[in-house]
Amino acid sequence: MQKILVLNGPNLNMLGIREPGVYGSVTLKDIESMLRSQAESLGLAVDFFQSNHEGALIDRIHEAYQQVDGILINPGALTHYSYALRDAISGVAIPTVEVHMSNIHKREEFRHVSVTAPVVIGQIAGFGAVSYELGLLALYRHLSA
Amino acid sequence: MQKILVLNGPNLNMLGIREPGVYGSVTLKDIESMLRSQAESLGLAVDFFQSNHEGALIDRIHEAYQQVDGILINPGALTHYSYALRDAISGVAIPTVEVHMSNIHKREEFRHVSVTAPVVIGQIAGFGAVSYELGLLALYRHLSA
Amino acid sequence: MQKILVLNGPNLNMLGIREPGVYGSVTLKDIESMLRSQAESLGLAVDFFQSNHEGALIDRIHEAYQQVDGILINPGALTHYSYALRDAISGVAIPTVEVHMSNIHKREEFRHVSVTAPVVIGQIAGFGAVSYELGLLALYRHLSA
Amino acid sequence: MQKILVLNGPNLNMLGIREPGVYGSVTLKDIESMLRSQAESLGLAVDFFQSNHEGALIDRIHEAYQQVDGILINPGALTHYSYALRDAISGVAIPTVEVHMSNIHKREEFRHVSVTAPVVIGQIAGFGAVSYELGLLALYRHLSA
Amino acid sequence: MQKILVLNGPNLNMLGIREPGVYGSVTLKDIESMLRSQAESLGLAVDFFQSNHEGALIDRIHEAYQQVDGILINPGALTHYSYALRDAISGVAIPTVEVHMSNIHKREEFRHVSVTAPVVIGQIAGFGAVSYELGLLALYRHLSA
Amino acid sequence: MQKILVLNGPNLNMLGIREPGVYGSVTLKDIESMLRSQAESLGLAVDFFQSNHEGALIDRIHEAYQQVDGILINPGALTHYSYALRDAISGVAIPTVEVHMSNIHKREEFRHVSVTAPVVIGQIAGFGAVSYELGLLALYRHLSA
Amino acid sequence: MQKILVLNGPNLNMLGIREPGVYGSVTLKDIESMLRSQAESLGLAVDFFQSNHEGALIDRIHEAYQQVDGILINPGALTHYSYALRDAISGVAIPTVEVHMSNIHKREEFRHVSVTAPVVIGQIAGFGAVSYELGLLALYRHLSA
Amino acid sequence: MQKILVLNGPNLNMLGIREPGVYGSVTLKDIESMLRSQAESLGLAVDFFQSNHEGALIDRIHEAYQQVDGILINPGALTHYSYALRDAISGVAIPTVEVHMSNIHKREEFRHVSVTAPVVIGQIAGFGAVSYELGLLALYRHLSA
Amino acid sequence: MQKILVLNGPNLNMLGIREPGVYGSVTLKDIESMLRSQAESLGLAVDFFQSNHEGALIDRIHEAYQQVDGILINPGALTHYSYALRDAISGVAIPTVEVHMSNIHKREEFRHVSVTAPVVIGQIAGFGAVSYELGLLALYRHLSA
Amino acid sequence: MQKILVLNGPNLNMLGIREPGVYGSVTLKDIESMLRSQAESLGLAVDFFQSNHEGALIDRIHEAYQQVDGILINPGALTHYSYALRDAISGVAIPTVEVHMSNIHKREEFRHVSVTAPVVIGQIAGFGAVSYELGLLALYRHLSA
Amino acid sequence: MQKILVLNGPNLNMLGIREPGVYGSVTLKDIESMLRSQAESLGLAVDFFQSNHEGALIDRIHEAYQQVDGILINPGALTHYSYALRDAISGVAIPTVEVHMSNIHKREEFRHVSVTAPVVIGQIAGFGAVSYELGLLALYRHLSA
Amino acid sequence: MQKILVLNGPNLNMLGIREPGVYGSVTLKDIESMLRSQAESLGLAVDFFQSNHEGALIDRIHEAYQQVDGILINPGALTHYSYALRDAISGVAIPTVEVHMSNIHKREEFRHVSVTAPVVIGQIAGFGAVSYELGLLALYRHLSA
Repeated sequence: MQKILVLNGPNLNMLGIREPGVYGSVTLKDIESMLRSQAESLGLAVDFFQSNHEGALIDRIHEAYQQVDGILINPGALTHYSYALRDAISGVAIPTVEVHMSNIHKREEFRHVSVTAPVVIGQIAGFGAVSYELGLLALYRHLSA
Repeated sequence: MQKILVLNGPNLNMLGIREPGVYGSVTLKDIESMLRSQAESLGLAVDFFQSNHEGALIDRIHEAYQQVDGILINPGALTHYSYALRDAISGVAIPTVEVHMSNIHKREEFRHVSVTAPVVIGQIAGFGAVSYELGLLALYRHLSA
Repeated sequence: MQKILVLNGPNLNMLGIREPGVYGSVTLKDIESMLRSQAESLGLAVDFFQSNHEGALIDRIHEAYQQVDGILINPGALTHYSYALRDAISGVAIPTVEVHMSNIHKREEFRHVSVTAPVVIGQIAGFGAVSYELGLLALYRHLSA
Repeated sequence: MQKILVLNGPNLNMLGIREPGVYGSVTLKDIESMLRSQAESLGLAVDFFQSNHEGALIDRIHEAYQQVDGILINPGALTHYSYALRDAISGVAIPTVEVHMSNIHKREEFRHVSVTAPVVIGQIAGFGAVSYELGLLALYRHLSA
Repeated sequence: MQKILVLNGPNLNMLGIREPGVYGSVTLKDIESMLRSQAESLGLAVDFFQSNHEGALIDRIHEAYQQVDGILINPGALTHYSYALRDAISGVAIPTVEVHMSNIHKREEFRHVSVTAPVVIGQIAGFGAVSYELGLLALYRHLSA
Repeated sequence: MQKILVLNGPNLNMLGIREPGVYGSVTLKDIESMLRSQAESLGLAVDFFQSNHEGALIDRIHEAYQQVDGILINPGALTHYSYALRDAISGVAIPTVEVHMSNIHKREEFRHVSVTAPVVIGQIAGFGAVSYELGLLALYRHLSA
Repeated sequence: MQKILVLNGPNLNMLGIREPGVYGSVTLKDIESMLRSQAESLGLAVDFFQSNHEGALIDRIHEAYQQVDGILINPGALTHYSYALRDAISGVAIPTVEVHMSNIHKREEFRHVSVTAPVVIGQIAGFGAVSYELGLLALYRHLSA
Repeated sequence: MQKILVLNGPNLNMLGIREPGVYGSVTLKDIESMLRSQAESLGLAVDFFQSNHEGALIDRIHEAYQQVDGILINPGALTHYSYALRDAISGVAIPTVEVHMSNIHKREEFRHVSVTAPVVIGQIAGFGAVSYELGLLALYRHLSA
Repeated sequence: MQKILVLNGPNLNMLGIREPGVYGSVTLKDIESMLRSQAESLGLAVDFFQSNHEGALIDRIHEAYQQVDGILINPGALTHYSYALRDAISGVAIPTVEVHMSNIHKREEFRHVSVTAPVVIGQIAGFGAVSYELGLLALYRHLSA
Repeated sequence: MQKILVLNGPNLNMLGIREPGVYGSVTLKDIESMLRSQAESLGLAVDFFQSNHEGALIDRIHEAYQQVDGILINPGALTHYSYALRDAISGVAIPTVEVHMSNIHKREEFRHVSVTAPVVIGQIAGFGAVSYELGLLALYRHLSA
Repeated sequence: MQKILVLNGPNLNMLGIREPGVYGSVTLKDIESMLRSQAESLGLAVDFFQSNHEGALIDRIHEAYQQVDGILINPGALTHYSYALRDAISGVAIPTVEVHMSNIHKREEFRHVSVTAPVVIGQIAGFGAVSYELGLLALYRHLSA
Repeated sequence: MQKILVLNGPNLNMLGIREPGVYGSVTLKDIESMLRSQAESLGLAVDFFQSNHEGALIDRIHEAYQQVDGILINPGALTHYSYALRDAISGVAIPTVEVHMSNIHKREEFRHVSVTAPVVIGQIAGFGAVSYELGLLALYRHLSA
């Protein structure tokens, strides 16, 4: 059974609380439940990790090295400046999909750029919690191909 | 039954021929078949239109006004400069999802920017033909919400 | 009797429908009626052409060569990138006035720049349908001078 | 009877003298006479003020607060850097139209940008003295609407 | 008794009138009364000067040379371009505190930069009329140190 | 009794040691004592937290959610790049005041920009330890208004 | 016999009419005659196509796929923004030479950049109608090598 | 006898006081005496005007129209942003020489650019009071040529 | 005996695993052994610390204050954005040498800039593990001088 | 008989040795032989000069003044920064054609700009040694016209 | 007797020939004669050197070290890019004055920047041959002060 | 025995004289002696060449082709603009190490960029004469690997 690591970066633990006008009322718990069901139906194992610490996310990615088949990541605001996270992802060479709940191209200019995007398979942005669902499906298709 | 218009911009008629190193050997025909099956299973009607003419794409979007429930678009290279296409999409106010087969963030710098992205629901890039599948699913989820 | 060609670019056929918050509820038909009356009272002949195709607008400008005394143009979003339209205008050397219904300086940054403005007599922006009226008057004054 | 304040910024008192190759031989006096006639025929009262002092222009705009129905302004070179003039215009909330005699898009690059344009109704540029006539008409149409 | 000069730049005479959505309904009079009381309780003499003229503000700063112990200034929009005001402040070498009522970092991009900030002790922005109170206190602390 | 959280970012634990030429000899301890006295006299409770870890600061802000009435923050060098800290502040929607001891506009160019400033009430910079005193007073005034 | 497709973009049908100060009095017809003779003497077949429509040029390039041995193109103003044309050229993988009649480096700044240049063999600019002659010879040499 | 107008912009009345580290201890009076002697020996009449008001400088330049043979100007900080002063100089078409006491290229970056330089005969910078002497000589040579 | 602290930033624990095409197969262990031998022969004590946490690196630098004679640091990707790390280094005022294994000038553009370089003695890049050897020698020479 | 000077800049003496992946194995000698034959058949005299010294190339251009009818130049890397070479070319006013063997638009960004291009007749790039042949022909056509 | 070295950079040997529209008909010989006379009357010895070789100019500056009291230099086009020339000037620490015959601010944008200006006493531009006269006088005044 | 060519660019002959505040009092002779000893102990032959002429440095690099095993270069100010030197280095394909005595990242902004760095093995900057020692060692390690 293929293993997927779902990573969430800074502030995503506050989902459903923080700026509901932008992100809606779904919590990270809700998203994890949804992904667990979806993973089950796709025959995938999923593991979850959220941290507000760039270093903890990098540590977790290193642990995943040769243990995990795919990574689904929403790096939160680290998307826009964490070259260290970018290096971690490209270093372990695990197929990774990047997701964002909001359409980052509709928001402040600094959010239009992702420093992690050039080292992942692809990026999905703008569909709220559905972005995660699509991301897991994308990863599944990629691993099945 | 909800109706979806699938639009493809310049050069996508050459899929499977043009730059296979970048886009693979799947043809636009193959993608349309795949989407037709997927639409059927989701209970959606799909219509297809491809053109190398910016104006023809805009005309088709105008025709869709109040006739279509969602648009799935791969604007091809127009993504990077067609403000006219952008205005067409935002003008008809039909929920639209933008897809790209390649990870545009890994390629030439001019491809990193999408002038249409700020007026669509969301953007999906990097998963080859699967980008279309994810896009249709995203649209379906959006219309069901 | 002097002949004026009134050109409208992409999406202007959707006036009254598209983004009424920005452009109001007047249709292109309404504007053409208004201009026809105004032209009559000024002793001018007017001809109208709208297209969503950059190439069709250029073809129409070429046809106007030595047949038309003045051009009143709202290039729509082509204003911001169509160097081909610019070359067509400067090539035929027909006095041209550029109009915009909205105040382009209040909107997205890309709309602040007009690539056609350097080859026309002048530019009028921000007065809704009245921009066309002012534009025709400007052309009339220019041709009478 | 509605009252219009016509403001002219630095160096416009030298019209007809200064750079006739760019601005022609019409003097500011001539323009004021022309506007007075036009105002009369439109049933508007007009008042004129020209100054080479940014501060004096701002003082005059403040005096106009709740005394004047519309402002027609040619800010001269202040167009390109006077954020104080911009704040004065947006502060009094009097409908304002900005005019320029020359086509600012054909001249030096610093003239392409107007810092006042985002706080006025609209901008008219390139028609010589006729720009003022069009501006007054635009204001009249705006106040009648 | 130490003497403080309170300077207000263009449009601040319109406080309470101009853009109340941004600046609230407090008038410059109200602020001066408030500062007079505060100064009294701190044992400082205060003098007030407002002008819409850059030159008048510079003249007033020159007069203050060797007559005044500290300057509290809200340069209004001159903040963003008046290098002449900057030179006046740095020339007289009187300790100066810069205040802004609104949070300039939340507004238009041109307001993010202050050309006077590099020659003052410090800058306080975003607290409405309270910015002045904090500024006077800052000046007092600085002069007492 | 209203509760205020005082946050200090990276390197501020070294105050009084690090670059005394820039920051003086006051230690963070001294500042905390000063703020405790001031808080007492204003009838406020204060809590202090310093960390060199961006993630720890974000965790602490999340804990403050619905527990704290105001935040006084000196983000240290994170001011200039931590979009994650910015999102944490704007996410919990607690009134926040940003302070800096040095005048950031007099130093290296990268220090002129604050990525957190657009999500706080206001910013105070340049008054050494007094910046904190002014910041606490600003917060008090804001909460009392 | 090798086949060469000669493509001309927007406004080149107006050669000899449009801006003769820049382009001289030679017409497109004249150039085609000249190229036909030259082709004959080199043992090449030539086909000509001119359009003001970006889409039509792209369609024509697609038709040429596997039918044509070389393309000689003057993209006109599309040179400076048509990424779609660029993708068409690189997609069909037909050796292509880009020509311009004027020295684009002597003209407006936007003409200094060619978005098609990176996908062609080489570029020739500045020799009037002779640029076409040199281009055909370059293509011939390339195909013979 | 040819007449020369010597203009000094903002803060130059403070010469000898303001930033002596940069400008030395010579006063404007001293410079004027020196220029008076020099003018006498060159057979020129000189008139002096200093103002901290951009508008007053412009007014003075307009008065000089057809009354004065040459202008020697040190625009002070207006050098870097006063397009209105630039237009005044180019408008009256009086030969003008621009001088600066300090070497503007050794100071802050904003001082490297002169918006008036493109409309004067030439610029002299870096020689303290001697810059004025050289400037008057340059003007004399120009008028004698 | 002088003490040297060897610091390694994010992802350097993965050396020999991560992107061997760029960094080779040497592990961080190997480098530490090599440095230990070299230090011994130079009569230096060495201490090693690696972390993926920016905050932990800063904490470690603070601990080194007045305990350590020199720092040898490879900040990994933090090189390109961690102003907090920069402030930590400049704050403790310990002589520091920055090393990179790869030639950062041959890689992505964001790697060309080091925000820590302006506060260290010098920088060495491009020699693989030998960069560390050279760095230790540089530090030794510096401390001996 | 018209005389042509063929100039080659820095490193072109290493053709056939230097970066054969980019430039192929043809030597400068080979190119000179080829050009000699071509010149003979065109009835032109050719002279050759190569130098790695910018100054020597300029000296040679000055010598050519009024002695030579045309210049064919490949400035090598000087293309991208030698304004002195540019001034030499424009100073002698000899018709000049610029050639490059590689397609400079496909290589590093600094090679996309030619500072000499605005002062030559035209530019030819991308055809290897054939670029020289085309360049000589272009010069011949220009001199015959 | 104080010794002055007069240096002229690339292409200045062509003065009177090269671009007379910009530089006039005076030759470098003429300028040297003029300077010789002026030097004599000022009691200065002058030495002249012109070269088209950046290296030769640097060699000559090095020779001047401790042999020469002042340098008068017109670096020609090297002004805009020769950091090596700049380092030579600042290295020998001989008072240097930079002159240009044309007003570099009226010409192409690249000529607006001087990389040597920050290391000289001052700069004089725009007065033709008179620029040299003024420059020698400036140097004389500087050495006499 | 492997041969190393040590190249020094413009102004380095003045070491110990020029800007001792930046470079110290060591002369180029001293550095060459030091390197000769070090080379002997490493079993390397060294050859030295310094020139202020870009072209002479390029000539010397060409001579080294297939004669020399490694190059140690301090290009002086040519570092920042000599693309010709860069092409010479990459053309001969001899392993090259770039050294700078000062920390170029602490100085003027133009010194932060090295155009030669992308074609060398690595770069060492900031250690005074020790930079050369480290560079020779780096080259030795590279050649031994």
